Amino acid sequence: MAKNKIDLATLNWEEFYKSPLEQRIKFFSKEGRLFDCLFSQQFPRKLMEKLFEIATRIRGIAKSKEGLDWLQTLLSHKRSMLYFVQPSTRTFVSFQSACHILGMKVSEIRSTSTSSELKGESAEDTIRTFSSYADLIIMRHFQEGMVEKSAWLLNSTPRPVRVINGGSGKDQHPTQALLDMYTLHFSFSKFGGIDNKTIMMVGDLKRGRTVRSLSYLLKNYKGVKIIYVSPEYLRIEDDIKKFLKKYRISFVESDDLVGNLKAADAVYMTRIQDEHDINNETKDMDFSNFHLRKEHLRLMKKNSIIMHPLPRRLEIDVEIDKDPRAMYWREERNGMWIRTALIAYMFGMEDTIFNFN
Amino acid sequence: MAKNKIDLATLNWEEFYKSPLEQRIKFFSKEGRLFDCLFSQQFPRKLMEKLFEIATRIRGIAKSKEGLDWLQTLLSHKRSMLYFVQPSTRTFVSFQSACHILGMKVSEIRSTSTSSELKGESAEDTIRTFSSYADLIIMRHFQEGMVEKSAWLLNSTPRPVRVINGGSGKDQHPTQALLDMYTLHFSFSKFGGIDNKTIMMVGDLKRGRTVRSLSYLLKNYKGVKIIYVSPEYLRIEDDIKKFLKKYRISFVESDDLVGNLKAADAVYMTRIQDEHDINNETKDMDFSNFHLRKEHLRLMKKNSIIMHPLPRRLEIDVEIDKDPRAMYWREERNGMWIRTALIAYMFGMEDTIFNFN
Amino acid sequence: MAKNKIDLATLNWEEFYKSPLEQRIKFFSKEGRLFDCLFSQQFPRKLMEKLFEIATRIRGIAKSKEGLDWLQTLLSHKRSMLYFVQPSTRTFVSFQSACHILGMKVSEIRSTSTSSELKGESAEDTIRTFSSYADLIIMRHFQEGMVEKSAWLLNSTPRPVRVINGGSGKDQHPTQALLDMYTLHFSFSKFGGIDNKTIMMVGDLKRGRTVRSLSYLLKNYKGVKIIYVSPEYLRIEDDIKKFLKKYRISFVESDDLVGNLKAADAVYMTRIQDEHDINNETKDMDFSNFHLRKEHLRLMKKNSIIMHPLPRRLEIDVEIDKDPRAMYWREERNGMWIRTALIAYMFGMEDTIFNFN
Repeated sequence: MAKNKIDLATLNWEEFYKSPLEQRIKFFSKEGRLFDCLFSQQFPRKLMEKLFEIATRIRGIAKSKEGLDWLQTLLSHKRSMLYFVQPSTRTFVSFQSACHILGMKVSEIRSTSTSSELKGESAEDTIRTFSSYADLIIMRHFQEGMVEKSAWLLNSTPRPVRVINGGSGKDQHPTQALLDMYTLHFSFSKFGGIDNKTIMMVGDLKRGRTVRSLSYLLKNYKGVKIIYVSPEYLRIEDDIKKFLKKYRISFVESDDLVGNLKAADAVYMTRIQDEHDINNETKDMDFSNFHLRKEHLRLMKKNSIIMHPLPRRLEIDVEIDKDPRAMYWREERNGMWIRTALIAYMFGMEDTIFNFN
Repeated sequence: MAKNKIDLATLNWEEFYKSPLEQRIKFFSKEGRLFDCLFSQQFPRKLMEKLFEIATRIRGIAKSKEGLDWLQTLLSHKRSMLYFVQPSTRTFVSFQSACHILGMKVSEIRSTSTSSELKGESAEDTIRTFSSYADLIIMRHFQEGMVEKSAWLLNSTPRPVRVINGGSGKDQHPTQALLDMYTLHFSFSKFGGIDNKTIMMVGDLKRGRTVRSLSYLLKNYKGVKIIYVSPEYLRIEDDIKKFLKKYRISFVESDDLVGNLKAADAVYMTRIQDEHDINNETKDMDFSNFHLRKEHLRLMKKNSIIMHPLPRRLEIDVEIDKDPRAMYWREERNGMWIRTALIAYMFGMEDTIFNFN
Repeated sequence: MAKNKIDLATLNWEEFYKSPLEQRIKFFSKEGRLFDCLFSQQFPRKLMEKLFEIATRIRGIAKSKEGLDWLQTLLSHKRSMLYFVQPSTRTFVSFQSACHILGMKVSEIRSTSTSSELKGESAEDTIRTFSSYADLIIMRHFQEGMVEKSAWLLNSTPRPVRVINGGSGKDQHPTQALLDMYTLHFSFSKFGGIDNKTIMMVGDLKRGRTVRSLSYLLKNYKGVKIIYVSPEYLRIEDDIKKFLKKYRISFVESDDLVGNLKAADAVYMTRIQDEHDINNETKDMDFSNFHLRKEHLRLMKKNSIIMHPLPRRLEIDVEIDKDPRAMYWREERNGMWIRTALIAYMFGMEDTIFNFN
């Protein structure tokens, strides 16, 4: 492994980027610990469950003023930079709150138009500039690979700064995947955990980043079954199916939401990602068969849960919000807690947190 | 009252919104305390004077570093969200400073374009999302009723979050009314208080939100006289006059600024709100008779005060700024203090503050 | 001096602005200490070296969590307003980080479009409004003289608020000059300091604000030689040459980068400021002779340094970044430290800092 790291360190970016993901993942760890958080694939079950444990502990501590004040002492000496070139209020505020909970000071850049790129600066120089002032950069970018490139670049400077991927292109959004897994873990904690559960994913499976990440991460659990429900045009991509077959994860594909509801322990609804349409091809399609409505609730298991990465349009009736199985609002708040846990872990704070009483 | 609350809780938004204001006001209180701050009408004299007392106490504490540091411990465990869809730097920074004084961590959303509304999310879901991360939402919106609707919506969730109205449509801006009243209270504290004073309001009385709120709140005081001075087209609306008559508050209408100056204890100047013009109807009108100029100062009482909600255009000569009766800059700073007091009160901190020494 | 101050205080802005700079500088000091930081000329060698000493001390304290937490107690009771009408991410975040390091609460205004100027408020009223909520205003403005005018205006109010110039028009950017001087001071600390060094400045000397400030400040040191290297069209302006002659500072002008490299202790590279072009006159010029390339490194002295105010375009090969003489990234971070030192000094904190252990 040491050898691999040295080899990778001699590559230029284009060569590095072409290396296998497993190799690159090693490059973004230091001393056995995540240094940059870029890919869902950086989270084996053991690490994920450690993060879940930290998150749950933090939630507990955060119930009192004393606890919240104490949490703010943990990283009060650190500054983070939220660099969100692509708009995303939800993820932005979630990360910002996580930083606030840990006492970090936060600077925010929400568009490129305020940046020196106007004066002809390269994206690499811009990110290095931000690293001059911060201990952590949380970055969202429309361009695939840009967040990884930033982390790669900063790792080669005399003052490396941690990077968290807050969403990069159409590909990776690892903290969204973490929060989804945490919600499953948390919801099933009294019902045997995620192992052997049936997870149904509904909607735009072709272009939904969260559905892809979730599918990858479910390989960490035993006996999981996946039911993919989508219109023909938006079926899950072949690379995912190949991955599932390789790891012998059981899955079926269907276009029947209602017929499959009674089998599901979790129903993961998603929005049609029409911003990725090339020719408005989904504009006039009828997706009403892929919407969850109040009358469907009676078909669902008593201990099942309904999830959604939000924002939603018509995928879930607003009336369902009050059903105890509706978990999407809690899921959103879970995002704040798991991000808090992730940052605390990256700065090596987990033992301090477990020792709090 | 318990019965009323239950009834209101069963209504949908349209029904709720049509209910009488006195009924709705009850819905936005919890355990005898303001939970959401939405309307000027939520402030009877007793509560207003309590807020004035808190504000004055906080100002005193804030005179030393020790005091300021102590104030920041009060709500150091709380996070607020400033959600300002309609631009307003003054109110925004005033509220932000109030949050900072109390040690709150602040997130800010200053436009809708960064929000998930772009992805088709409903305004209701957006506000609920913000509530996931915050303990208090301070909201300004161009659409009448939108702030109230947000507070109503959040009150029905399992995790209700407080809402303060930072300006909603043409109608309500309760903290502006509070700061105006606080300035009157503070300025007249050595001269018998607000009771029996003559308040002159000048300018765009038809469309000025502050003039309307101030008129409502003056009903809480005894023997107050109001002189409304405006051009014919911008006279105070009939609903206000009806209200004043109902509560037997003495008022006169006039278009003579100079002739009335000597009677006034407070001269409340306002800007022509031409953003509410429908056909540029005020564009070519001459308002110079409704401007306060240096030569008018000698006509005014020695202990009178000059107020203005700001921003100003030509309503008050800049040269007047140095006159001791010019109170508008202090009025602005009072806004920060009364907002600090309001937030502290909403979180039940007043006793702690009074006990500080 | 007291007499001068009184005289200046009676002038209106136009008269004041026409007064000699040495006179105006006195107006912006209080009790022998910088009150507003507006001009490079406010920093005689003694004060500059005090600031360098504070900055270096703060850097040392900032190496531990305890130190960083302690620094945040220094100005935890103060609020600053970053009012940046002209975009500048680098300077903005640098100042914001400086405020965070000292524990200040920060409000930010990054454009005029959110401000009350939309409602017809004067720039003077806007700045006075901001001063209502803040203890320090850090301001960047595209209009020459606007920052000075703001400081002048606020000095005449009953509640004067400190102002720092974060860049004003084409003229002054004093903290950039300070950070450049600090980088020279720091880099040469083991090599006899800045005295007797040869400083080469390369590129757009005609319109580069930093080159001008640096030239002015070098008068504080003995035996300094300057080599100005630029294309004919972008030569240093006559007023600077006149200034240098007056103070007997040795300088030469040249268009030969390579031939002069071996004489330089510091090579200060700058970007072509084509945003100041009137008719795209530099658009088709070839500046490749004014770029520093890897093959030039062997021509440079072993202990020399390469500086750049950033952002860069092609002036310095990216490959040079790893050379130990490349100082521009450290220079950027120095900016944060010297700004921290400046703010701490303005609030009289230097003794407290020196006494920390």
